Amino acid sequence: LLIATLGATQAVAADSQATLESLKNKALNDDLSYQIVESLTTEVGARLVGTPAEKRSVEWAVNKMKSLGFDKVWVEESEAQLWQRGDLSASIASPFAHPVAALALGNSVGTQGKTLTAEVVEFADLAALQAAPEGSLEGKIAFVAYKMARHKDGHGYGEAVGARVVGASEAAKKGAVAFIMRSVGTDTNRFAHTGVSRYADGVKKIPAVAISNPDADLLQNTLKRGKPVSFSLTMSASGPTGKTTTIANVIGEVTGASKAAELVTLGAHLDSWDVGTGAIDDGIGVGITLAAGHYISQLQPRPARTLRVILFAAEEIGLYGAKDYVQKHQDEMSQHVIGAEWDFGNGAIYELEPGINEAALPAMREFAESLAPLGVSMANSNTAKGQSDMSALGEAGQPAVNFNPDGSDYFDYHHTRNDTLDKVDKQALKTNTAIYTMFGFFATSTSTDFRPRPAS
Amino acid sequence: LLIATLGATQAVAADSQATLESLKNKALNDDLSYQIVESLTTEVGARLVGTPAEKRSVEWAVNKMKSLGFDKVWVEESEAQLWQRGDLSASIASPFAHPVAALALGNSVGTQGKTLTAEVVEFADLAALQAAPEGSLEGKIAFVAYKMARHKDGHGYGEAVGARVVGASEAAKKGAVAFIMRSVGTDTNRFAHTGVSRYADGVKKIPAVAISNPDADLLQNTLKRGKPVSFSLTMSASGPTGKTTTIANVIGEVTGASKAAELVTLGAHLDSWDVGTGAIDDGIGVGITLAAGHYISQLQPRPARTLRVILFAAEEIGLYGAKDYVQKHQDEMSQHVIGAEWDFGNGAIYELEPGINEAALPAMREFAESLAPLGVSMANSNTAKGQSDMSALGEAGQPAVNFNPDGSDYFDYHHTRNDTLDKVDKQALKTNTAIYTMFGFFATSTSTDFRPRPAS
Ligand SMILES: [Zn+2]
Ligand SMILES: [Zn+2]
Ligand SMILES: [Zn+2]
Ligand SMILES: [Zn+2]
Repeated sequence: LLIATLGATQAVAADSQATLESLKNKALNDDLSYQIVESLTTEVGARLVGTPAEKRSVEWAVNKMKSLGFDKVWVEESEAQLWQRGDLSASIASPFAHPVAALALGNSVGTQGKTLTAEVVEFADLAALQAAPEGSLEGKIAFVAYKMARHKDGHGYGEAVGARVVGASEAAKKGAVAFIMRSVGTDTNRFAHTGVSRYADGVKKIPAVAISNPDADLLQNTLKRGKPVSFSLTMSASGPTGKTTTIANVIGEVTGASKAAELVTLGAHLDSWDVGTGAIDDGIGVGITLAAGHYISQLQPRPARTLRVILFAAEEIGLYGAKDYVQKHQDEMSQHVIGAEWDFGNGAIYELEPGINEAALPAMREFAESLAPLGVSMANSNTAKGQSDMSALGEAGQPAVNFNPDGSDYFDYHHTRNDTLDKVDKQALKTNTAIYTMFGFFATSTSTDFRPRPAS
Repeated sequence: LLIATLGATQAVAADSQATLESLKNKALNDDLSYQIVESLTTEVGARLVGTPAEKRSVEWAVNKMKSLGFDKVWVEESEAQLWQRGDLSASIASPFAHPVAALALGNSVGTQGKTLTAEVVEFADLAALQAAPEGSLEGKIAFVAYKMARHKDGHGYGEAVGARVVGASEAAKKGAVAFIMRSVGTDTNRFAHTGVSRYADGVKKIPAVAISNPDADLLQNTLKRGKPVSFSLTMSASGPTGKTTTIANVIGEVTGASKAAELVTLGAHLDSWDVGTGAIDDGIGVGITLAAGHYISQLQPRPARTLRVILFAAEEIGLYGAKDYVQKHQDEMSQHVIGAEWDFGNGAIYELEPGINEAALPAMREFAESLAPLGVSMANSNTAKGQSDMSALGEAGQPAVNFNPDGSDYFDYHHTRNDTLDKVDKQALKTNTAIYTMFGFFATSTSTDFRPRPAS
C-alpha cells in the first residue's frame, strides 16, 4: 500500500496537486484568455501573411507577452511565399444568371484581367474528377460538389480537403480552364471557405475557387435541369509570385527554476486568413497559451522546467513558421520534453491523447485524473504528434499531447468571414484555458520525463 | 342536442370534413410547394424591383399558375419608385483598420463618388439618437447599436425596425453626415440585413447603412477603448431617384362553382431583396399559395366561391403592389369575403388568429378544430388584418385570418444573402401548405360569411 501510494504521488506530489487545483480555479474564474482574443481581434483583426496587419500582430504579440510577465520574449524571422488575394467576382452566367459567393483558394492564380466564362462539368468528388478521361475537360470548368460531413472529431475535413489542395491541378491535367468546388465547411451560410491549395509541378496553373454551400446547391440544381450551364469568373489573385515575405515566430519563456534548459512548449499560430478576424482560428490558441504562460509565470516557486510559448507564423499557408522553428532549434530539439498546440477552435476538450515515452504513461494518467472533473479522459492510444504547427516539432522528435475538443461546429466558421469574436464560447474557453494551464504546470514541474517520443 | 349537432355541422359539413382530410393528406404527402420554391429561386433567384430578374419573375409566375391549373391568370401593372443599390465598401478606418460587412438600406443615397470618412458617435437605440442635442452630430456618423431580441412571435422586429426606417433623417437633423446601424436581425453572421428606409421631407438625405452583428460588436469594442473612432463609406446607391419602374401583381383564380363573384384571397409577395434568392422571403409564400390553389383547382365539384391567389409586387419597398390592388379593385372590395397572406418564413404555424364578423367565429372555431392535429389552435382575439400585403386589403375592409408561425429564426435569414433554398424547412412547409389548402377550401366552400370585418 505504501509503495503504491508513493508510486501514485511520484508524478504529481501533494503540493503540486494543490497548485493544480489553484491554477484550475484561477483560470475558471478569470477571463484573461478571452480578453487576449478580444484584444488581438479588435486591435489587429485579420492578419494574412504578407499584409500590414500581420506585421502589427507580431508587434502586438511581443507587447502582450511582455505585459503578461514572460521572462524572455523574442522574435525569429524567416521567409514565406507571398500570395495576394486581389478581387473576385463569380456568377452562374446561364441559363439563369445568379451572383455566386466565392473565394479564391490560397495560392490561386487569377484570370489575367479578363472574365473567364465556360461550361461547368460536375463531379461528385475528387476521385470522380481524377477518373475523368484525359482531355475531357478541354475548355471547361471542373466543379467538385462533394459536401463535407460533420463529425465530433472533425474527420470530415480530412475527407474533403484533398480536393481543395490538389483539385485545380487534377482538373488542369484533363484540360480544364478553372476549378471550382463546394466549400470545405459544415455550415449553410452563403459565403465561401478559403484555405490553401497547391499547384503540381509542370501542370498549367488554373484559377482555384471555393463557392458557398448554398451556391453549390444552386449550381447543382441548375445542372440537374440537363442543359449546359456556364459560369463566369473574374479574379485578380496573384498566384505563386515567386516573391517571399518576411514572417516571424513570436516566442516567450517563463524560465524554469532548476532545469531551465528543459523545454515544455505550448503553441498556437498567430497568422490567420484575411476574411474573418481570426478569433477561432487561431486567436483562441493565442489566448489560451498566453494566459497559461501568465498564470504559470505568477507561481512562486517557479516550476523546474522552462515553459516556452510559441506563436507560430504562417501556419495557414503551410506551417512555414513551424518548419523554420525546427530548423533554427535543431540543436535544442532533444531538450524539448513535451509540447501541446491549440488550433482546434471553440469546443470543450474531452480527451487527452498522449504521444510520449511509454514509461511516462502512468504519470500522464495520474495527471489526467486531475482533468476528469473538467470532462477530460485519457485516450488509450499513444501516437499524438501535436496539432498543426506542433506536428512539425513532433516529427522532429518532441513528445506531445493532443487535447481533443468537440469539433462539431469548428468547420462552420473555419476560414470564413464568420470567424469573429462573437463565436467564442466563453465557458469552454475558460475550461480549456484551465486545462492548458494545468498541463503546462504539470509538465514543467513533474520529475517524469516524456522523452523519447514513441517510434511512429 | 340535435340543434347543437346541426349547429356544429353547419360550417363544415361531413363531406367537407372528408375533403379537408383528403386535402390535408395530399399536401402532407407531396412536395409541390417546395418544388415551386425551388423553381422560383433557381430559375429566377433574387428579384428586386426594377431589375431584369423581377420582370422574369412575373413571366415565371404567369407560366407557373397556368401550368398548375388556375382558370384565369392575369397581370396588373402599376408603377413603383426605382432604387438602385450600386456598390458599397465600408470600413473602420482608425484607430484599428477593419473591413466591415455592410449593406445600403433601401432608398439610401450614396456618397457621390467620394469616400466619406468621419468620427462615429454611438447611440444605444433610436430614442437615444433622437434625444441628442441639435447640432451635436455635425460632421459625424451616427451609429445605433441596438440589438434585436429573438422572440417566437417576432416582436423584436417591431422594436428594432424603427431605427432602420427613420434613423437616417433623425441623425441628419442633428447634423450627421451618415447613419449606420447594427442590422435588424437575430443571427451572428458577418453580413448585413437590408430593408427599406425613408427620408423625412425637408431633411438632408444622408447615407443609411446596416452593418453585420459581428461588425457592430467590433465597432462597439473599438469605441469602448475611449479614443476617437473613424469610419469610412464609399457607396453608389441611387437614393430616391424620382424615376419609377413598372411593377406587376400576378393574379390567378380558381373559379367558384356557384358564388363566383365572392372572393377568398391567398396572398404572398413575388418580389424580393437582391441579396439572397428570396426563398424564405417570400418564395415560401409563393409556394404555399400556388400549391393551395392547385390542390383546390383539382376538386370536383369545385367550391362555391372563387379562390384568388395574388402574388403582390414590390412589397419590400413599401406594399406598392398591395396598394395598387386595393385601388384597382375598389368596386370589388366588398366581395372579398376573407383573405390570408403567407410572408413569415419557415416556422410551423401554431395559431389561427381571425379578424372576421363575430357571428362567424363559431364556424371558424369549428374549422380550427380540423387544424388541431397539425398543432394549430385558435387565438381568442379577433383583430387580424392579414400579414404584409394583405393588411392593405384588411384596411380596405377585407376580413382576414393570420396564421402565426414560430418565427424564432425568421430574422436570422430575413433580408440577407442567407435567404436561400437550403434554409427551407421541408416538413414545416408541407404542414403549412396543408393548413393554407384546408383554409382555402373551407373559406370557399362554407356557407358562412365572414363579412363585415370587425371595426378596429
Ligand atoms: Zn489554424
Ligand atoms: Zn486555419
Ligand atoms: Zn416579405
Ligand atoms: Zn421582406
